[in-house]
Amino acid sequence: MATNKRNPPSHGAARSILRPRAAPAAAVEIVLSRSGETALFVQIREQVRGLIQRGVLRPGVRLPAVRALANKLQVNQITVARAYRELVETGLVEGRRGGGSFVRGFSGLRTHAGEADRAPTQPMMAERLYELARAPGVISFSSNYPRLDAAGLAEFKTCMMEAMDLHLEAAMQYELPAGRPEVREQIARFLSDEGMTVDAGDLLITSGAQQAIDLTVRALCPPGTPVIVERPAYYGAINAFRLAQARILEVPGDDDGADLAAIEDGFKRGRARVIYLNPTFQNPSGVTMSAARRQAILALAQQYGAVIIEDDHASDLRFRGEPVVAIRAMPGGDERVIYIRTFGKTILPGTRLGFMVCPPALLQRLLLMKANADLHSNGLTQLALARFLERRRYPPLLKKLRQTYGERQTKLFSALKAGLPPSCRLTCPEGGLSLWLTLPDEADTSELYFRAVRRGVAFVDGSVFYAFEPKTRSMRLSFGLIDDGQLLEGAGRLCSLVRDLQHGVRSSSLVFT
Amino acid sequence: MATNKRNPPSHGAARSILRPRAAPAAAVEIVLSRSGETALFVQIREQVRGLIQRGVLRPGVRLPAVRALANKLQVNQITVARAYRELVETGLVEGRRGGGSFVRGFSGLRTHAGEADRAPTQPMMAERLYELARAPGVISFSSNYPRLDAAGLAEFKTCMMEAMDLHLEAAMQYELPAGRPEVREQIARFLSDEGMTVDAGDLLITSGAQQAIDLTVRALCPPGTPVIVERPAYYGAINAFRLAQARILEVPGDDDGADLAAIEDGFKRGRARVIYLNPTFQNPSGVTMSAARRQAILALAQQYGAVIIEDDHASDLRFRGEPVVAIRAMPGGDERVIYIRTFGKTILPGTRLGFMVCPPALLQRLLLMKANADLHSNGLTQLALARFLERRRYPPLLKKLRQTYGERQTKLFSALKAGLPPSCRLTCPEGGLSLWLTLPDEADTSELYFRAVRRGVAFVDGSVFYAFEPKTRSMRLSFGLIDDGQLLEGAGRLCSLVRDLQHGVRSSSLVFT
Repeated sequence: MATNKRNPPSHGAARSILRPRAAPAAAVEIVLSRSGETALFVQIREQVRGLIQRGVLRPGVRLPAVRALANKLQVNQITVARAYRELVETGLVEGRRGGGSFVRGFSGLRTHAGEADRAPTQPMMAERLYELARAPGVISFSSNYPRLDAAGLAEFKTCMMEAMDLHLEAAMQYELPAGRPEVREQIARFLSDEGMTVDAGDLLITSGAQQAIDLTVRALCPPGTPVIVERPAYYGAINAFRLAQARILEVPGDDDGADLAAIEDGFKRGRARVIYLNPTFQNPSGVTMSAARRQAILALAQQYGAVIIEDDHASDLRFRGEPVVAIRAMPGGDERVIYIRTFGKTILPGTRLGFMVCPPALLQRLLLMKANADLHSNGLTQLALARFLERRRYPPLLKKLRQTYGERQTKLFSALKAGLPPSCRLTCPEGGLSLWLTLPDEADTSELYFRAVRRGVAFVDGSVFYAFEPKTRSMRLSFGLIDDGQLLEGAGRLCSLVRDLQHGVRSSSLVFT
Repeated sequence: MATNKRNPPSHGAARSILRPRAAPAAAVEIVLSRSGETALFVQIREQVRGLIQRGVLRPGVRLPAVRALANKLQVNQITVARAYRELVETGLVEGRRGGGSFVRGFSGLRTHAGEADRAPTQPMMAERLYELARAPGVISFSSNYPRLDAAGLAEFKTCMMEAMDLHLEAAMQYELPAGRPEVREQIARFLSDEGMTVDAGDLLITSGAQQAIDLTVRALCPPGTPVIVERPAYYGAINAFRLAQARILEVPGDDDGADLAAIEDGFKRGRARVIYLNPTFQNPSGVTMSAARRQAILALAQQYGAVIIEDDHASDLRFRGEPVVAIRAMPGGDERVIYIRTFGKTILPGTRLGFMVCPPALLQRLLLMKANADLHSNGLTQLALARFLERRRYPPLLKKLRQTYGERQTKLFSALKAGLPPSCRLTCPEGGLSLWLTLPDEADTSELYFRAVRRGVAFVDGSVFYAFEPKTRSMRLSFGLIDDGQLLEGAGRLCSLVRDLQHGVRSSSLVFT
């Protein structure tokens, strides 16, 4: 007999007089592991979170009483109470006057008026990070894009001058929303060289990858749409979904990428038809999904009629190992995948040019979104990019870039590995310009951030990569703009900060809560 | 005793058995003028439309039966039936199985799924126009921006090269969403020279005016928000409101601009808190609002706590008459007005740079929208624009531009005036690059469009400037890209087309319906 059926009727009756509108508590299926690897309150918290995010526990539903659940699970009441309290802190659950814990509306479904007050915090946080990162004396591990070297700059300038010499008058006229034919053809050829067959007519030139994400979200996600993202995920995508008032379903992952069962659950029970992924060098975790996992996700998308947003932000910055084929390039990917990419993360940051390859069935709607957003992207820069690709300047510049940044990554990773306490976890992906550092349980990187800046080092607080976590113990360390001379100094500051923190855990509750 | 109270109870009872869920018909107050100036069915149609758009008649409400309204108004039933039929055609009213006419959900409130099927038509129409306008042999009156002459092109190129020489590396890095400080300072100075005091910190650089409109709509208009636009209005704004699922309230205008009583009605009864205006050389009508009207609208906005979106798209292209002060520059305008402008409509089309001056209370939210939309606008072009403004190249280039296009406008206006039948109405605004032509009653310019292209002339069909009109008898004639050599030929083709149409009214129902 299930414990939660045991509530004595008399108790229920008494409650119904005191709180006549209270819903009966939901049945909550939780399975605990007693191996001691993960704290019991964490297991409860995470499983309840999962049930809420997958829509099994819906907004307004009452959670079992602390005592009832503790009895059922044979744990201490304090353990359940702690799990509930932390769910309240993340905004997924609310306590109500008169008692009881209730599932809140999803963060993504907050009313727009409420959203106006709350939403700015995270992107504004990102902006504040950016400003601090520019403060003099601060070594900032926050820029996830490289510095163009003198040869690259000269090359771009040449292309820009050629574009002005040849086409300035044309570039000063309005364009079609899809972008200039020259650049679309060059990009199609470039992708074909990489093994992806694309019709130039299915390409849409965007003002950076962020715009491609935003256009996609606006095209596919009316308010309330359930969408799947990895946990953690790129904050630009999370924010776009949040602004669209989508219902964000986070799926966990392992070393092979997003969890397949969780994705199927999101499609099936969560009724999501949109999933956002960075299959290669995931931002921020750095994980690269195996070809088999990609194939399986594509098969699921086909089965459920879903669209995959494949944001391929850094696959060309691979330092080691073998490339994994893009989902878009797999058989059937052309119909299911919106493939997003930018040259801004490699050789042309600041130009604000990206592109998306659109399934033909979605192209018209995406073009409409583009026309509404900004009519078309800067014409002259498009022409310069077309020249750049036509002159085949990308491969040699990229080769040099890979070498420079591959060496820098190794250097940073080694320095951190040597200087950080062994309780920290640090990824070393096969490419990309970021490492992902996870501090020991109970650290709070958003608190730590301000202390870090005072010590002359900055990072991106992990909480921006989670839809429902105001606090995390992870940080993204991007080394794109940190020159070799500052790399070790920055790593040293970071290590000493974390070590002091470990020591300070007994003397201060400011950082460890 | 009011006529609509006369429904015999027995009739009502009988109806309630046949259609038990039918709502009682709404009371509809209509006042008819019998002067003969406007057809009775048009008066009925327009007054019912107004009641619906202002929210007096709400979605789902049943309109009076044709016979009842005809009795009440003392008109023929056919007159009422025609008015209702045309309201059905515009989508404001629907007939239901079992009889009766009902107010539909506003077009702006259609479900998103329906929207996906329907919304693309108008912007895609604009794009199709654009494509046709490029067909060889077609003289296209569709581009509402000028051609930069050789001196202007050379000037821009110089600025771009200087920007690359001085700041290329900086321009290749990511920026803050607001835009580069250099260009914001130069724009603030430029506006100050024009008499508008602006803090550079309140300026946001956008990817063209269209993005400024879109960001504003996303910041201020959650689904269902009532918004006021002029009738007709710029289609880029209508589309942005439509995509945001705003509830569009159109207000009519006169030679002095948008109707004040209708605006107040929209604020008061329609509960709108957002109004979109082109006070100078309104796109498409060309009307310039008097300073008194502007002042009165600002006073209303202050009274009702509303925001004015002042899209000042062409005030610098004034050929004759005295400038009228922008609403933003009036006392109190800084708190109520989002002022949008672009250099793209004058000297730098194609660069996709515009700007908005934001009330401080809205700035953070608009910056959030900008960051989400595309992080920031192209940095190099911003730097080139800063150089352009710093070198004070704008005033002399603009002076030449005004002279060229002022002469071109006069030439086009004279040719059309001489060649069109006297039943046509043609505006001749004091500036801007468009004329607004209205054909006689019953013409249909969207039908006419395809015939026009076959004859080698194109225009912008007036229907894109109305939120609720699939058919109109107006067209916008923009002469920005038509050189002097083609101007008279184009005007001649257009005049002969309209004259033939007048003749054909008796022989064909294809164009006149």
